Amino acid sequence: MSIASLTPTTRSVATQFDLSTGLAAGTASLRRPLSAMAGMYADAEAFAVAVAVEDVLSYEFYDMGVPSLETEIAYGTSVTYPGRVGDEYFMTKGHFHTRLEAAEIYLCLSGEGLMLMESPEGDVQVEEFRAGRSVYVPGRYAHRSINTSATEPLITFFAFPGDAGHDYGTIETKGFRKIVVERDGVPTLQDNPRWQS
Amino acid sequence: MSIASLTPTTRSVATQFDLSTGLAAGTASLRRPLSAMAGMYADAEAFAVAVAVEDVLSYEFYDMGVPSLETEIAYGTSVTYPGRVGDEYFMTKGHFHTRLEAAEIYLCLSGEGLMLMESPEGDVQVEEFRAGRSVYVPGRYAHRSINTSATEPLITFFAFPGDAGHDYGTIETKGFRKIVVERDGVPTLQDNPRWQS
Repeated sequence: MSIASLTPTTRSVATQFDLSTGLAAGTASLRRPLSAMAGMYADAEAFAVAVAVEDVLSYEFYDMGVPSLETEIAYGTSVTYPGRVGDEYFMTKGHFHTRLEAAEIYLCLSGEGLMLMESPEGDVQVEEFRAGRSVYVPGRYAHRSINTSATEPLITFFAFPGDAGHDYGTIETKGFRKIVVERDGVPTLQDNPRWQS
Repeated sequence: MSIASLTPTTRSVATQFDLSTGLAAGTASLRRPLSAMAGMYADAEAFAVAVAVEDVLSYEFYDMGVPSLETEIAYGTSVTYPGRVGDEYFMTKGHFHTRLEAAEIYLCLSGEGLMLMESPEGDVQVEEFRAGRSVYVPGRYAHRSINTSATEPLITFFAFPGDAGHDYGTIETKGFRKIVVERDGVPTLQDNPRWQS
């Protein structure tokens, strides 16, 4: 990621996203192969096997380079591909905002899944994604997209304050308190055995 | 519209929008019949006739009641219906943000049209809307959605800083410097004969 500008935008920008793939031709996405998720999945053995078999692309998203100012709106699409590591669904790393109070809005364009949200104090909230459903992530909540479909990518459009920033480190170090696994074919919220207080 | 809260959100909110209509069942939209657009169209006679024949719904959009704070994200969908007043396409009133510097992002979900943007100094920018195309409206630019299709609604999803606010008065009083009319079947940018400096 480039260093964000502090100069306000003065020109409009149009970007063509493909609503069926979530991708914008000619714009570089940030790609997260499964190997980039080391330590994030509960089943470390299943993770090692999965990466060894094929280090597939687990998700990708866009950073459109919007200035880091509270008057600007960072935005883009996020595509989480279908798959599992053991019983746990493919998901994004998830993050807090560096400006912790900054909220975020998601609109699900296609696919199905869950938004897992967690405050520093441990309050956990979960909302469903399906096509056309918006999910408002309140300020102070870390958030992670989880694809619960076995076949379809989960495609969302997101927008948040330009100065929000990303704090990935807290989740990389501690994890979320909860994970979502498939039990008898149903997405199920469980305590994360690897969570560190 | 209710008075916006200054208390940050603490709960997630999910809303189901119908991607084919742009509407959220059970959530009240703000509806703008053609009669609400008095003085906005260049051809006053055509406007009077059109309203007398049938005061159709020209556009509607949502105010989801997000707190008026820079850390929050106001969002919703906007649906501009197909139609014309004389040669001029159906459009939204358009507005500046009260916090003039606040930018806005739009994602076109379906239909086709234009985003007309204008700064207080008179710089005019125009971007095309079509399905999947995002348009970033820079801070300081008034913006108006224009539906150039003869048959399809123009449906967009929008997001802007929670504290941006709406200044409709400036456009209601002065208008935009430019209008978009159909000439030989093609959307064409022209000077607004009713614009007041």
